[in-house]
Amino acid sequence: MHRLITLLSDFGTEDAYVGVMKGVILSIAPQTTIVDLTHCVGRHAIRQAAFLLAGSVRYFPPETIHLVVVDPGVGSNRRALACQTQRAFYIGPDNGVLSLALAEDPPVCLVELTNPKYRLQNVSSTFHGRDIFAPAAAYLARGIPVSEFGPTAGDFIRLSLPEVRIHEDGSLGGTVIHVDRFGNCITNISAAMVHRLGPSVCFETGTIVIESLSPTYSSVAPGEPLALVGSMGYVEIAVREGSAAERLKLRVDSDILCRSCPRTKTGRQS
Amino acid sequence: MHRLITLLSDFGTEDAYVGVMKGVILSIAPQTTIVDLTHCVGRHAIRQAAFLLAGSVRYFPPETIHLVVVDPGVGSNRRALACQTQRAFYIGPDNGVLSLALAEDPPVCLVELTNPKYRLQNVSSTFHGRDIFAPAAAYLARGIPVSEFGPTAGDFIRLSLPEVRIHEDGSLGGTVIHVDRFGNCITNISAAMVHRLGPSVCFETGTIVIESLSPTYSSVAPGEPLALVGSMGYVEIAVREGSAAERLKLRVDSDILCRSCPRTKTGRQS
Amino acid sequence: MHRLITLLSDFGTEDAYVGVMKGVILSIAPQTTIVDLTHCVGRHAIRQAAFLLAGSVRYFPPETIHLVVVDPGVGSNRRALACQTQRAFYIGPDNGVLSLALAEDPPVCLVELTNPKYRLQNVSSTFHGRDIFAPAAAYLARGIPVSEFGPTAGDFIRLSLPEVRIHEDGSLGGTVIHVDRFGNCITNISAAMVHRLGPSVCFETGTIVIESLSPTYSSVAPGEPLALVGSMGYVEIAVREGSAAERLKLRVDSDILCRSCPRTKTGRQS
Repeated sequence: MHRLITLLSDFGTEDAYVGVMKGVILSIAPQTTIVDLTHCVGRHAIRQAAFLLAGSVRYFPPETIHLVVVDPGVGSNRRALACQTQRAFYIGPDNGVLSLALAEDPPVCLVELTNPKYRLQNVSSTFHGRDIFAPAAAYLARGIPVSEFGPTAGDFIRLSLPEVRIHEDGSLGGTVIHVDRFGNCITNISAAMVHRLGPSVCFETGTIVIESLSPTYSSVAPGEPLALVGSMGYVEIAVREGSAAERLKLRVDSDILCRSCPRTKTGRQS
Repeated sequence: MHRLITLLSDFGTEDAYVGVMKGVILSIAPQTTIVDLTHCVGRHAIRQAAFLLAGSVRYFPPETIHLVVVDPGVGSNRRALACQTQRAFYIGPDNGVLSLALAEDPPVCLVELTNPKYRLQNVSSTFHGRDIFAPAAAYLARGIPVSEFGPTAGDFIRLSLPEVRIHEDGSLGGTVIHVDRFGNCITNISAAMVHRLGPSVCFETGTIVIESLSPTYSSVAPGEPLALVGSMGYVEIAVREGSAAERLKLRVDSDILCRSCPRTKTGRQS
Repeated sequence: MHRLITLLSDFGTEDAYVGVMKGVILSIAPQTTIVDLTHCVGRHAIRQAAFLLAGSVRYFPPETIHLVVVDPGVGSNRRALACQTQRAFYIGPDNGVLSLALAEDPPVCLVELTNPKYRLQNVSSTFHGRDIFAPAAAYLARGIPVSEFGPTAGDFIRLSLPEVRIHEDGSLGGTVIHVDRFGNCITNISAAMVHRLGPSVCFETGTIVIESLSPTYSSVAPGEPLALVGSMGYVEIAVREGSAAERLKLRVDSDILCRSCPRTKTGRQS
């Protein structure tokens, strides 16, 4: 059986933690292909990891095994989970990091990883990525059914992501939920929500008003701010060839207001 | 068909962009081996990416597929290219990023990527790496001929890299074209050009004179500057166990003068 | 023959050096699986690389080929080594970088890499990772016996790591030997040494006293310092959800005193 395993963690690239997890996987399941989603989410940044995972899974082959180790509670009594869905398999701690992906792709089978047969012999209290999660992923890749890994887990912890607020005047109160390497600020306002506001919309970031939704970065001049529907289907506040985060002083949790905004000849407001 | 795909981008390692491109590739061509050249070139640093690609391709097996996504014009009307050469395949935007590699390994077949059959179904305006370039690389890996991807592209955009100026006195006016992680400053002066100047040469960096071409880093004491022929066949200004960029205040585009310099007993000048 | 090659270097991720080494390996041995341990050890940080390698090898399959290129003496007369052990193969410069792994897994066959048949045709004086080490790893992966690569090497350079000092009162004078991405400070004091001191121990870091050995990070409140046995079996000084390096002003080579410490009601001292 040849399966794909993706890895997502906050281990960074300076240590050998990720390499060691791959060694464990390939010791158990040598034919596996391993793909790094990223290991550079902020330390213990469960929400950021959950967001990146949820936006990625649809681009992988069916039955891919997604392994996430952002695990501030390692060694405590937080549970370790394995999960099968229509689309894929998920493995990680029960701290919400899987919950955004599972919201779109709900569990068919969800178990707690307790079977000692599918762990390393000595389990440390600080590195379950190596001792529990990586072996589980590898045995899944070898075709062991999810139900073998432990008892049914009942429910799992869900992240409470900020929801878009719909104000009395119909405008949308959104939030920045991710800032990427380029300083693009991805919000929780979906393209569909924006389209419901009508043909002309504008966005208020706290420091400026962006007077329309642009089709592409190159719709504005270099250095100019814009709003567009990003690659995940959500409104992104960007600056062409610049950093919106820096330029507009935005960060995760910043408010973004989106409202219907009939085109007039007024200039940019502040 | 088992082929190798290399990836070069400015996506960084903090987001899941690169992982998602790999998911797309492995969904279409599961047997592919994928190698990262780097994802940490400066944002929109077309010249740096072009330079790294050109210096790398000769070390890969024949028919390797090189995919480059440094794409400030994504979503605009810049063309997307696929290209077959004697040595390899190249895929990327038509902004010059492929041109240094193609200067040494010219196209046998060059097409514009327009065939919707070889793209993802929904093409975003912000992430052609995922929606257009990765699928094209994967279909090439599956053996689809380049000519199937779209119409012949005619010509492609070439970077105008600084050329070495030959002065009246025979000296060479070179330029730093890349600074690596170690602060080594790689110039556009080739070993062959230097050798034509005779057995003794010296290098002026603006702040110091380096009085010979060293065979190796360890020819000088730790902390001392030197010039040597680097691993790509070009003169490199370095500091043993230190950073030439920092120490000699050099950066991309800094001038380096190389001249014949009969060995005398004069000390280091400044 | 299908073998696994791991790579460990100080090349960073900004250049294409690592990608090029992979190109060389896959040109010679296309079926190889390559795993990065890390390429982000400090420049020329032989001790850090040696430490990470030694802690990683036991998690890889038998006969894995570990290739290490942290090589400040490249181009000098330092030797290039290949080595077979009970567990694995090792390739790297003779500067001590392999010695901690070999201390636990001694050489069965140790040779100097001199056979021109198993190098690239043109060997640069600055990038033996590409020209000598990567080809050697690839030919090993193809099944060429170690003895073919050159003459027996006799001995190899060993790092002199700081050893734990046992003081007259029985207390242990340890040293921080690695600081990981999280700021956890890994010492050279093994779990066995600590257990010999009796059931109650405390740790002095120079700025604070930590009054016990905790089983897990979550034994203390967020922000609190603790000592625990880390994933490599050594005492780690940590701060829960924080950086011990920053908070306690620790770095590699900082002293850590461990002593028997009957539980009393005294508060934390400084």
